[in-house]
Amino acid sequence: MSDDDRIQRGEAVLERLFGRAPRPGDMPEGFREATVGHLFGDVWSRPGLAIEERSLVTVTALTVLGRENELRLHLRGARNLGIPREKIEELLLHLAHYGGWPVAVSALRLLPEVYDAEG
Amino acid sequence: MSDDDRIQRGEAVLERLFGRAPRPGDMPEGFREATVGHLFGDVWSRPGLAIEERSLVTVTALTVLGRENELRLHLRGARNLGIPREKIEELLLHLAHYGGWPVAVSALRLLPEVYDAEG
Amino acid sequence: MSDDDRIQRGEAVLERLFGRAPRPGDMPEGFREATVGHLFGDVWSRPGLAIEERSLVTVTALTVLGRENELRLHLRGARNLGIPREKIEELLLHLAHYGGWPVAVSALRLLPEVYDAEG
Amino acid sequence: MSDDDRIQRGEAVLERLFGRAPRPGDMPEGFREATVGHLFGDVWSRPGLAIEERSLVTVTALTVLGRENELRLHLRGARNLGIPREKIEELLLHLAHYGGWPVAVSALRLLPEVYDAEG
Amino acid sequence: MSDDDRIQRGEAVLERLFGRAPRPGDMPEGFREATVGHLFGDVWSRPGLAIEERSLVTVTALTVLGRENELRLHLRGARNLGIPREKIEELLLHLAHYGGWPVAVSALRLLPEVYDAEG
Amino acid sequence: MSDDDRIQRGEAVLERLFGRAPRPGDMPEGFREATVGHLFGDVWSRPGLAIEERSLVTVTALTVLGRENELRLHLRGARNLGIPREKIEELLLHLAHYGGWPVAVSALRLLPEVYDAEG
Repeated sequence: MSDDDRIQRGEAVLERLFGRAPRPGDMPEGFREATVGHLFGDVWSRPGLAIEERSLVTVTALTVLGRENELRLHLRGARNLGIPREKIEELLLHLAHYGGWPVAVSALRLLPEVYDAEG
Repeated sequence: MSDDDRIQRGEAVLERLFGRAPRPGDMPEGFREATVGHLFGDVWSRPGLAIEERSLVTVTALTVLGRENELRLHLRGARNLGIPREKIEELLLHLAHYGGWPVAVSALRLLPEVYDAEG
Repeated sequence: MSDDDRIQRGEAVLERLFGRAPRPGDMPEGFREATVGHLFGDVWSRPGLAIEERSLVTVTALTVLGRENELRLHLRGARNLGIPREKIEELLLHLAHYGGWPVAVSALRLLPEVYDAEG
Repeated sequence: MSDDDRIQRGEAVLERLFGRAPRPGDMPEGFREATVGHLFGDVWSRPGLAIEERSLVTVTALTVLGRENELRLHLRGARNLGIPREKIEELLLHLAHYGGWPVAVSALRLLPEVYDAEG
Repeated sequence: MSDDDRIQRGEAVLERLFGRAPRPGDMPEGFREATVGHLFGDVWSRPGLAIEERSLVTVTALTVLGRENELRLHLRGARNLGIPREKIEELLLHLAHYGGWPVAVSALRLLPEVYDAEG
Repeated sequence: MSDDDRIQRGEAVLERLFGRAPRPGDMPEGFREATVGHLFGDVWSRPGLAIEERSLVTVTALTVLGRENELRLHLRGARNLGIPREKIEELLLHLAHYGGWPVAVSALRLLPEVYDAEG
């Protein structure tokens, strides 16, 4: 697969998740290629896991690692894929026991801005 | 719900996942009650996420946090629920990008002992 | 013990620490029950550790894990239990060597808003 | 305070905790001086926290961070200071809720080798 | 070496990195002595690693651990030592694969305020 | 750049660091391509950081994150690039203050098997 195809495929995934993909100038060019072409074009586009499953496990990873900035973004991605708020709440109760209460409470606090903003 | 009901319900989940539940004497009694009665009886038994989803996100959390002992156990749980090895491998490639390569490689190394031991 | 008793006992601990307990609607109901009934009603209420010890080790855990939101809350709890600021400062110097300087410095920065606000 | 005094004071704390202090040749000399002279001579020797409190919060930090090697050592230190096993078990149940179940379970597994070896 | 010498040497390193060193009253006095005298006076002043190397590995550690407050400070330190922005960007692309994408993206977001503010 | 070129370039880096590159069958094929082609072929091969710098910051990241398995491997890589043991020891003393003593001590313990085995 050519690098251009990778980028195109990654952009399609990113637009589906977040409405837009990083453009040249948004981040250092090498970082953008690795993100759009490799992470979203190569990895997220693979068939072995449905995109909804990738979204759910990404939210899980970001929650237990306490990566709040990226979590906010991927919660929006989950919402855009149609994953209901109640499912995320259930996930966070579960994760409180594996990553500790504090990461779950911090994630809970992000839900209103993500789901109440839904049009 | 009575405490005895909680314990019974938790034991049923634990047996399905791991073949056995912690018995009195396996761990301090307060810890056993919280684990069997609360974590597996109250939380894992809730209807908002299927048990296979709980297994997958638990494997995800343990992988990115690098909790190898518990991960080995929950990989066995995933296998016992019928989640195929290929799906776990796909998950680990995905997670390498969120928790870093090292946690994914460490998790990969556990797969042979879990899946090759399958009867 | 009944679920109502758990909730009541947890509310008493939460009010002592923070002045108020989460009410229905503050968080998803399953999360509230696990927090008030299980975490504060079952665990914090156990006799094996004094509440001041539980507060100190909770502040310790939140500091080294870098969980700033929850740390702010539990620093207020420590203050409300009468743990002096000097003891927390001594703790943070100690923890700088186990969790690294950055988590200790971040925790130090929270002390003025917690202790200078004391009435 | 002279560097020799620091080292001596640190050795006294280390011997009380672990029965012995690192000697020249056990680790790189700069690391040994920082550990014996600074960490144990300067920090652990300060009056603002009792040594039993320092032990308890160190065990807490090592548990939630999942630092198993050092945790094993400091569990022995806690035992040598007379902190009873039941208090550590109570601590671990508490910490399961702040650092997640897996770190608490891993710490629990170390208790028999530490406390059953007690003479 | 006397404690005053340590403090002086530490202050010199801190001023070179950040333009100023913590003064009495900026933080608890014991913490200040450990930071200025020990961390910067004893450790950063050692000859085995060049200060630019110490800066680079400190930025690395803070990035992968997600310690954003301290990272912002040490990115300024790196800039003040003359480490070019392009080298930090290259570092962050590398670290995305060891600490995960989210910590690298969070660090990237700090670069404009650090490097665009350069006089 | 074609995928075959990526793989070849990655294999060259891996052989220089570790003496061998993962071959088909060593790990799931998608994971191998991402590791050899992307991580080592695309990222480690970029010109913006010297390979010795990449090695040093990788050792740094693995140390502070406590990733012992991968750290052992990359310490061998550092040794194979000619980075002297004394420089790694100096690095670990520095990192004890950013990631905490326990991760530095755990890394120190790996040095004999890596450097004493040197032919």
